[in-house]
Formats: sequence, structure tokens, C-alpha cells
Amino acid sequence: MNLLHRRGVLRAAALFPLVGTPAAAQGNDPLPSWRDTAPKRAILDFAAAVTAEGTPGFVAPADRIAVFDNDGTLWVEQPIYPQFAYALDRLKAMAQRNPSWKQEPLFRAALAGDMKTVLASGSGGLQRLIGAALAGNTPEESARLAQAWLAQAKDPKWGKPYTALVYQPMIEMLRFLRARGFQTFIVSGGGVDFVRSFSEQVYGIPPWQVIGSTFELRSSLLDGKVNLTRLPAVDFIDDGPGKPIGIARQIGKRPLIAFGNSDGDFEMLQYTTEGSGRRLGVLIRHDDLEREHVYERDTQVGRLARALDAAPHRKWLVVSMKNDWSRIFA
Amino acid sequence: MNLLHRRGVLRAAALFPLVGTPAAAQGNDPLPSWRDTAPKRAILDFAAAVTAEGTPGFVAPADRIAVFDNDGTLWVEQPIYPQFAYALDRLKAMAQRNPSWKQEPLFRAALAGDMKTVLASGSGGLQRLIGAALAGNTPEESARLAQAWLAQAKDPKWGKPYTALVYQPMIEMLRFLRARGFQTFIVSGGGVDFVRSFSEQVYGIPPWQVIGSTFELRSSLLDGKVNLTRLPAVDFIDDGPGKPIGIARQIGKRPLIAFGNSDGDFEMLQYTTEGSGRRLGVLIRHDDLEREHVYERDTQVGRLARALDAAPHRKWLVVSMKNDWSRIFA
Repeated sequence: MNLLHRRGVLRAAALFPLVGTPAAAQGNDPLPSWRDTAPKRAILDFAAAVTAEGTPGFVAPADRIAVFDNDGTLWVEQPIYPQFAYALDRLKAMAQRNPSWKQEPLFRAALAGDMKTVLASGSGGLQRLIGAALAGNTPEESARLAQAWLAQAKDPKWGKPYTALVYQPMIEMLRFLRARGFQTFIVSGGGVDFVRSFSEQVYGIPPWQVIGSTFELRSSLLDGKVNLTRLPAVDFIDDGPGKPIGIARQIGKRPLIAFGNSDGDFEMLQYTTEGSGRRLGVLIRHDDLEREHVYERDTQVGRLARALDAAPHRKWLVVSMKNDWSRIFA
Repeated sequence: MNLLHRRGVLRAAALFPLVGTPAAAQGNDPLPSWRDTAPKRAILDFAAAVTAEGTPGFVAPADRIAVFDNDGTLWVEQPIYPQFAYALDRLKAMAQRNPSWKQEPLFRAALAGDMKTVLASGSGGLQRLIGAALAGNTPEESARLAQAWLAQAKDPKWGKPYTALVYQPMIEMLRFLRARGFQTFIVSGGGVDFVRSFSEQVYGIPPWQVIGSTFELRSSLLDGKVNLTRLPAVDFIDDGPGKPIGIARQIGKRPLIAFGNSDGDFEMLQYTTEGSGRRLGVLIRHDDLEREHVYERDTQVGRLARALDAAPHRKWLVVSMKNDWSRIFA
């Protein structure tokens, strides 16, 4: 999650109602919510090339690895990452049991919803808050808590559950690639427990194909039973240069295709497209004020500048949500 | 890998030629190399119960997780773990480029094959040796090096490649469980890169379903490209109490069934069988002098004492290689 790394100011995102777009006629089109523009053609061409048996570009199914960032690539991340909204709600729920928090300016600001002070505390402050909010639980409790929160929390702008604000074109892309023998992985800067709590149901991606940032886990005995609890200390930040490390450590193969939307995905796209043979890097650009948000260089939540500047030289595809997607939300 | 944890003395294992056992008639038996004894019946019964739709014991395919230790559970580990033989060969190959090693008693002993001194150095010494032997490579180089070594190395007792010394009954078990909707994972104390270098070909298990001990990875730029290299420092020991942590961190679900053979698997079996509903823990006992090895309480390579003592109380199955397997090697 970029919030763990960067200071930033929340953008006020205007409330735009979802424009109901009828789904394109499906027919034989595996990507009906993608308009027939250059990015779709390039992706279809890439998938055809690496799956064409008997050709030099053929890649065996075992090596067809596709990686996807989550926040801003598969679902909304503005005005704040859903996981950070979750952590703030958890802090509020836990405040009574932690009276000492009131003595600390950072926690007091978070509990009061003073986002300016919170974000001014930098990545160290954000890590402390998220660590405190989500520590102490077993992995199973963490999943239940996150699922319970997701079942009732609403995006502040659209009043919809976050899991309804996933991008339909990307859901189609996940299915399209899996149908062609790809294994799909999420490689998120967000906390892995949170993403795993909905990835199977929403994206069809099992937890062991989700890589993310982690807090340390402690193993101890409780009533004679193995008890795993999450500590407040960060173990691994799966963002920026951490993403290739997370991929190598957990997947063990270099991806063929990578989708991202921010500078935190730069190294993942770089690592992917520097592999031998044909590879593909794709950047999603948030440029649709009417149907989603517009943000790019001037935000700290999903900032896209360095990767966008590098895209032409590195031959990364740039997808415009406004021009290349006929429909945005699932 | 237990070697990273424990001091020990290598056992001299006598050279017993493989006794050619004709494979049992396959027919409808999914486990033809398992004799019709109590462990096989219990495993078949367990698999039938958790896959019986419409019954209270039914477990959805998404939650059918099976975990397997590697050394001594899926392939031979005596007289020394194959990965340690690999590390010693690498050290010898690298000695000329590292003249300072000759000044260090530990490295000098390793290069001279003085296993007594090496093992007397304890887990710290062994970690230093393995770290030095396998550091500096990219994940892709590590895989190629391990594969090249496995292609020519021979087990010292049988003169066969290590990958030929996998247990046929366990290969059948992996296939049997996968055919019933289980996801199969290796949870090894060994280094993850080494196990991944052959797991797909030999066990049908892709690298992202292999969890193991890790050395730190460093990400840097080399000629402007992302360059991941393994450092000599240990990052995570996936043995003993580390196994539940590795499972939670990488799989994200508690297993339904766990197979192990040593005290390093105790916590993995404990964590598995303490889950709600029906679970199964299985220990493989090395008690066949003629067809494999006999070792149990008095060895440091795959020691089995605490877990065996706990088995009756915890209702873990104990499988005798001698009595319950009609065939040992694949």
C-alpha cells in the first residue's frame, strides 16, 4: 500500500453517480467491456502469440504467469485506500480498550478523523496506526473481521460496498487470461490478509495467489494449541522495489504480463518486461471524471508519473479508462 | 531443513540394493502402492468424508488444502539431506574463487569432507556454509544450478539420481488428493529455491505451492535492469514452529491434511489437526532397512521422537514404510 511509504494529501473526490452503461453484447468477445481500441488489440494479440502451439513465441501453461496490482488496478483506491478506511474504523472500535491512545497526538488525530495530521506523520506514522489497528488477531480472526467490515462499509462517494467498485474490464481480463491457461496473481502493496479476505469471492483468486505487505506473525501456544497472532511490526512492504522480491519469493517465476496503475508498480512492470521473450506491461490511467476519478501526477494515493513517463520507451501499454473501457464497474 | 537447526552426527547408511517390487495391479485403486492396511483405509475414509456433497463433513474444494513435508516424506533424506550435498558440491566448485575460505576451519572442514567438524559447528555453522554456497545468484540462476546438479548427482548409497528416490506411494497420494479437488503444497524446512527447481517436474507442484526456508533477496539495478540476488543471510526458517507461520503467510488457509516424518513437522501437524471439523495428520515412519533406511529417535537427520510419542493422543496416523507400502521408490 502506497500509504505505508508516502506522505500525501487526500484529494476531495467529487461524487459522481454511476452512469449505467449497458454491457456490450458478449458474443464471442472475451473482453466485452473493453472498446475495440489499441490496448485491447495489443492484449489479444499478445495472448494469441504466447498460446500458439508450434510457434517460437509459445509459452507452456506452467509459465503463463499474470500479475495484477489491486488498489487502482482492480478496484477503487480514491479518496483513500479501502484498507486504510478499515484500519481507521478498527482503531475507533478499539479506542475504549486502549485509553493510552488519547495521550498520543497521532492516534488522537486518527480517532478524530483529522486526516491532514495523520498523513503528515508520514509512512512511519501510517504503519504505526495500521499496525495497531490490525495487530493481535489470528489470521482466521483477521479474515472474519475484514469480511464483516466489507459487508457493511460503504464507499464515501457512491455509497456502495467497496467490493461492488471493482472494475468490470479487469474482471473480464482475469477470466480471459485464466481461460487461456494463465495463473493470475495479485501483487498488492496492501496488507495481504485484507486482500485475501475477499480475493477468492470477488476475483476468483485463492489466497495463496495473493502477495501483499505483511506484518510479523508470532507463533505461540494458547491453551496448548498453536496460536498465530499478528504483531504490530511490519515484516515486508510489497510495493515499489518490493514487488519483484515478493514475486520471486512467493511465485518463483517471472511473470509474462503485469497490470498496474501507479509508480508503486514501476518495478513490477520493469521486472516483468525485462524477461526474455515476449512480455507485456500494462498501466491503467484514471482519466474518467464522469465514471470514476481523475488523478495522476498530483496525488499521493496512486500517483502515476515516473511509470507513465517511462511507458513509451519501455513499450508499456497505457489504458485510458475513459477511452478504452465501455464500462467501468462490475 | 533440520540441518539449519540441529547439531547431529551422520549415520552410516548401509548400501541396500533396491528390491524390485512389481507395481500392484492398478484397477480402480487410486493408491496401488499402499497395502490394504489401517492407514490407507483411514486416508480413503477421510477423503471420502470431506468430499461427500450434502453431508455435514463436506468441505468445499477451495478449502481442501493438503500439505507435505519434503525431506523424508516425499523423498530420501539419509544419509544427508540432498540439498546439503548440493551445497557442499557448490562450495567445492567455488573454493578457488574464495581463497579466504582456506583460512577458516569451518570452510576447510567442509571442503575436505570432514562432516564431523561441520556438523559440530551447529546450526549457525551450517547456515553459514549453505548461505555462502548459494548466495549471489538470481532466482533464475539458482534454479538452473540446482537443476544441473540434480541431473548429474547420485545418491551415495544407491548410485541413482535423487529425483529417482521419491516415494511412489506419496506420488500416488499427491495425485489422489488433487483428483479429489485438493490443492497440494510442499512445506519444507529446505531452501525454497532448491525444492522449486524440481517440484513441478517431479511432484506436479508449481513453485508458488512450495513453501520453504529462505535467504534474503536483494533488489538492485544491473545495467539498468532489475537484478535480484540472494544474500547469505537467512530470512526465514520454515521448520518446527516456523511451519504454521509459513503456511499462514503463504497459503492463507489452515490445511485439512498434513503429512510429515520428523519432529520438525510436529507444529505443522498440530496446527492442521487443531482446526475445526475433521482434519488428518499423518507421520511416515522409516522402518524398512531392506528397501530404504531405518532411523527414528537416534538420528539428527529426520529425528522422530516427540511427534511419534504424541501421535496416539492426537490421533495422528502412523504409516510404516515396511508394513504399509508395497513399493517404496517411484
